[in-house]
Amino acid sequence: MKLYYSKLSSSMAVHLVLEEIGKPYEAIQMDLDSQHQFTPEFLEINPKGRVPALVLDEGEKKVVLTEVPAILSYLAQINPELSLMPTDTLEFAKAQSFNAYLSSTVHVAHAHRRRGSRWSDCAECRTSMAAKVASNMSECFAFIQAHYLKKPWVLGDSFSVCDAYLFTISRWLEGDGVDINIFPEIRRHADAMLARPPIQRIAALHC
Amino acid sequence: MKLYYSKLSSSMAVHLVLEEIGKPYEAIQMDLDSQHQFTPEFLEINPKGRVPALVLDEGEKKVVLTEVPAILSYLAQINPELSLMPTDTLEFAKAQSFNAYLSSTVHVAHAHRRRGSRWSDCAECRTSMAAKVASNMSECFAFIQAHYLKKPWVLGDSFSVCDAYLFTISRWLEGDGVDINIFPEIRRHADAMLARPPIQRIAALHC
Ligand SMILES: N[C@@H](CCC(=O)N[C@@H](CS)C(=O)NCC(=O)O)C(=O)O
Ligand SMILES: N[C@@H](CCC(=O)N[C@@H](CS)C(=O)NCC(=O)O)C(=O)O
Repeated sequence: MKLYYSKLSSSMAVHLVLEEIGKPYEAIQMDLDSQHQFTPEFLEINPKGRVPALVLDEGEKKVVLTEVPAILSYLAQINPELSLMPTDTLEFAKAQSFNAYLSSTVHVAHAHRRRGSRWSDCAECRTSMAAKVASNMSECFAFIQAHYLKKPWVLGDSFSVCDAYLFTISRWLEGDGVDINIFPEIRRHADAMLARPPIQRIAALHC
Repeated sequence: MKLYYSKLSSSMAVHLVLEEIGKPYEAIQMDLDSQHQFTPEFLEINPKGRVPALVLDEGEKKVVLTEVPAILSYLAQINPELSLMPTDTLEFAKAQSFNAYLSSTVHVAHAHRRRGSRWSDCAECRTSMAAKVASNMSECFAFIQAHYLKKPWVLGDSFSVCDAYLFTISRWLEGDGVDINIFPEIRRHADAMLARPPIQRIAALHC
């Protein structure tokens, strides 16, 4: 397996999970500021021009998976012995709901700080979007703390891919102008993550 | 099961799938313009203040599922005889990737037309966001047509929940200023959907 990632981006969630799984994989770093995502070579791999992209070797054919929630549940399902996601249908759905919320609402809230040009061609507007990121991210994390995060892990007793995704996005808070200490449970969760050696190794690469 | 939905919103995807499944369900219409989503009664059901919300009766406890991609795969998995999503792990992941893309990128692109206040407090900026919606939606649908949509259904030979989600979002194109006929395969897909009686029944309610 080959992961295309960039430092501190949402692709870190996949990187963390691959390292937790502990099987061999290749991780290829992309520099988004240097527009590596728009080279013809990469666009052939992922025509979206985004990371993460996970390249699977399925016999003759190279298969490329994109979208964090889809990659995370795939990795959980092909490594069932690690219980990285629940197998019970309803509990699986709740885990998926969490991942979908992070990707469609929280990641998107954050992206308005530096990726505003996706949604507006006007420079002042992009400034106004960036100005709202801290309050939007605070609202999202207050919601997560109150309604999604069980203890000690997102889904309760077992570590799951959801923890890797939450941890990844919680690393964006400081840059987004939000003090993580306002959310004691999120802070505790981040500390618990950093106590795991595979997480430490990847976190050290993403800084 | 009880679905909270609003007309023509992303919750229509869930409504379509419930009708395709053909088991009894209750559908409760919310008027988002009248702010039904912010009543204390609804916020108790879904503190996000959004639709869809699917209420399950799990014995004593009421369980509420939110986020379209999570609800869609849940409905597919509890009705395995209908094959509304692939069971093969990799094919399931590809279906999930499609749903995640619709929710995190295409739905979000569309939301900048009327929900700009989520991301900016400035009125002119919201106008500038709305002005970019048509080109963003065109880009997304060009991508879907070129890279995701197999034939005749999104995943190929079998109808799946992905078709309900794509159809729902394709209904937004006209309002977003995009002529669906620019995308012949999306247009053909919408026509194929409208040939199915359950889809006809729900489409008639959402207009
Ligand atoms: N919905 C996608 C979002 C992927 C995404 O936006 N990735 C960002 C990094 S966090 C990226 O590649 N940005 C590069 C660019 O916008 O040029 C997912 O969840 O995988
Ligand atoms: N990521 C959520 C988005 C849900 C969402 O934004 N729903 C809209 C309707 S399409 C809504 O309820 N809007 C009400 C509001 O913003 O006040 C999902 O996929 O379910």
